[in-house]
Amino acid sequence: PVPPGVLPLCSRPPVWGRAARQPPGLLLAPCRTFSNNKILVELDESSGVATMKFKSPPVNSLSLDFLTEFCISLEKLENNRACRGVIFTSAVPRIFSSGLDITEMCGKSTEHYAEFWRAVQEMWLRLYGSTMVTVAAVNGSSPAGGCLIALSCDYRIMVENPKFNIGLNEAQLGIVAPFWFKDTYVNVVGHRVAERSLQLGSLLPAPEAHKVGLVDELVPEEKLQEKAAAVMAQWLALPDHARQLTKSMMRKAVLDRLVAHREEDIQNFISFISKESIQKSLRMYMEMLKKKKS
Amino acid sequence: PVPPGVLPLCSRPPVWGRAARQPPGLLLAPCRTFSNNKILVELDESSGVATMKFKSPPVNSLSLDFLTEFCISLEKLENNRACRGVIFTSAVPRIFSSGLDITEMCGKSTEHYAEFWRAVQEMWLRLYGSTMVTVAAVNGSSPAGGCLIALSCDYRIMVENPKFNIGLNEAQLGIVAPFWFKDTYVNVVGHRVAERSLQLGSLLPAPEAHKVGLVDELVPEEKLQEKAAAVMAQWLALPDHARQLTKSMMRKAVLDRLVAHREEDIQNFISFISKESIQKSLRMYMEMLKKKKS
Amino acid sequence: PVPPGVLPLCSRPPVWGRAARQPPGLLLAPCRTFSNNKILVELDESSGVATMKFKSPPVNSLSLDFLTEFCISLEKLENNRACRGVIFTSAVPRIFSSGLDITEMCGKSTEHYAEFWRAVQEMWLRLYGSTMVTVAAVNGSSPAGGCLIALSCDYRIMVENPKFNIGLNEAQLGIVAPFWFKDTYVNVVGHRVAERSLQLGSLLPAPEAHKVGLVDELVPEEKLQEKAAAVMAQWLALPDHARQLTKSMMRKAVLDRLVAHREEDIQNFISFISKESIQKSLRMYMEMLKKKKS
Repeated sequence: PVPPGVLPLCSRPPVWGRAARQPPGLLLAPCRTFSNNKILVELDESSGVATMKFKSPPVNSLSLDFLTEFCISLEKLENNRACRGVIFTSAVPRIFSSGLDITEMCGKSTEHYAEFWRAVQEMWLRLYGSTMVTVAAVNGSSPAGGCLIALSCDYRIMVENPKFNIGLNEAQLGIVAPFWFKDTYVNVVGHRVAERSLQLGSLLPAPEAHKVGLVDELVPEEKLQEKAAAVMAQWLALPDHARQLTKSMMRKAVLDRLVAHREEDIQNFISFISKESIQKSLRMYMEMLKKKKS
Repeated sequence: PVPPGVLPLCSRPPVWGRAARQPPGLLLAPCRTFSNNKILVELDESSGVATMKFKSPPVNSLSLDFLTEFCISLEKLENNRACRGVIFTSAVPRIFSSGLDITEMCGKSTEHYAEFWRAVQEMWLRLYGSTMVTVAAVNGSSPAGGCLIALSCDYRIMVENPKFNIGLNEAQLGIVAPFWFKDTYVNVVGHRVAERSLQLGSLLPAPEAHKVGLVDELVPEEKLQEKAAAVMAQWLALPDHARQLTKSMMRKAVLDRLVAHREEDIQNFISFISKESIQKSLRMYMEMLKKKKS
Repeated sequence: PVPPGVLPLCSRPPVWGRAARQPPGLLLAPCRTFSNNKILVELDESSGVATMKFKSPPVNSLSLDFLTEFCISLEKLENNRACRGVIFTSAVPRIFSSGLDITEMCGKSTEHYAEFWRAVQEMWLRLYGSTMVTVAAVNGSSPAGGCLIALSCDYRIMVENPKFNIGLNEAQLGIVAPFWFKDTYVNVVGHRVAERSLQLGSLLPAPEAHKVGLVDELVPEEKLQEKAAAVMAQWLALPDHARQLTKSMMRKAVLDRLVAHREEDIQNFISFISKESIQKSLRMYMEMLKKKKS
């Protein structure tokens, strides 16, 4: 058996407090912005901190296009030695991300389901395994896949508005969170809270999410970005190499589990989602959402 | 290696909110009662909820007869498509269940020990792995095996009386909780609380049990059944299939562990319980209980 | 696969409340003291409780000499049937232990690194796997390896002074806590607290350490020894055999993991610590400490 490893998460050479040695308060710092369709990415090279802002109205749902753009953007930052940390937030009012796009899972071909699911896996593998410091600045509701993005970061700050809720509510839709959603959740809130809230498909209002440890901190909306920057600075004060090895040590078992069963997990998803009963349930859910909107 | 599975816990075809589609408030609902010697079972077919009420005075101890009746009753409900959830409670005042019947472990034959231990395993495998929603309405003290029944349910409500206590207190008797008692406990309260309270054989008064998460909720005695019904209704609002797959995903590893080592676990029990030092310790404990009673 | 075992941690024959049968309040009890260079060991044969008092100024750092003495002393007590529990505390004001001695890791030979690391492993294997009741009476700051000693005990009491802090702060020094430090930490505070504080190399003031469960209890300095004795008496009230088997069941998986990968772990340490970047970082840290002192 392979020993519990302390290998770095990716092959990028370790950054040793490099960016931190630059003057942090430089006002006219070069700030590269590269915006694609669905995500706005800003990198402040003076601090080494990037922001990925979801701007895919109405609800930042995780479509195949969104996921592809997410992975490409994250990979670019991962390979950019000027970037040491990423803050994830939303440009859409009142919603962080509504999770996986149900239209990608309804009435499509087996090939499409496979491609879509591989993209969901890829997003999680890159985010949960990122060597950069990742902070979720959750400024709106964040169900299902939206919650997974937050759970996969190193730290979660949420706007204290009790109208914003967060959780892995898949069971409410008649579907099941995959094992790696569950593993990620258990690593954050522990077995008991996960068992109960996954079975109930609970969406927790921000204050309750904070109480069970699903988010680390609550702040007023106007303080969110400032707080995210302060938390990021605290994490970036550590030498990157030691922090990265430590992060890898904590997350490797769960990452390896999906890597080892990735194709199987895709087949499981396809056979589950292709069931007529599940398709019917998802169609009913979409109808309900449409009625709610109008 | 087998991938982390999301298979249903038993082979019963999934129930998809079937019972829930029946009128829930029907006052003259058919309510089947089948009472055996030690457990009274009532099934309200309108709600799909059964109650298993322990009525084996003086202390609802888990004798071989009790365990056999428990397993048969639970299996009947599991196979009854009209039943979606079970509430466990006691008809004996001030005691939920006192745990394994010590007389079954004292001065008996090897064959008897084997039969008894297999029945204890069977009870736990059926209860912890039940596809139904299981709620413990703990209306009295609940040491050792009584605590295990509560721990194996999906949700635990306890009467707030601080004179009622609960815990895996095996160590106090000089015996050791088996690994699957421990696994079940760790899944509820986490490693640290389990390590400490298993070593000390702690029995926690209801308020402390609530504080460490051993029970989910405290209520006044007169509100217990009402609260249990309300919690059950909340859990039954979810589609059975998704809830069952999720429950299986959370509990499968621990269930599989006993299944894989069942015969070995029986042999361990026999060789441990047959030791003269253990037999002496159990006899002393029974003497103490007898004196206490008179 | 080997079943989840319930074997005793060491081969010492079980003690069945033996010492407890002796008169506990005997004032003129034989009290053997054997003091070596760096640790004062006192055994009160009437209570069966030993105290190991670290007296290696200025900061009780875990040098090779200290570790060797620690292991020999602990082994002596483990083999002494008159001893059932050990309290660990410091004779140096304001510091419990500063952790691994950095001078042992700086500018030394590969052979020295191997010998040193084997001694660190040995200390943890003996302490975490001890069949005796172990209580840490933390009367000062306790970073890194000092924290590991506390984490490896059965119970942790800390002086409530917020100037005393405790934690696995390796990341602050640019090094990584080994996997078995991490496993021990996760078993005490859970995955999430461990992930966050290991990455940040957090040293928590006593009140915060208590809040996250890193220590079990806070007391005023003048009450520490009294409290430690009371806690010890509570744990010793249990029959040794059942308590030892339970302890083994809780800790065996984590202990076995190091035993299985011990040589590999030594090689990992050597290759990590021999890196020029790490050596440079440690030298800088030592310079800083020297400047701080003067």
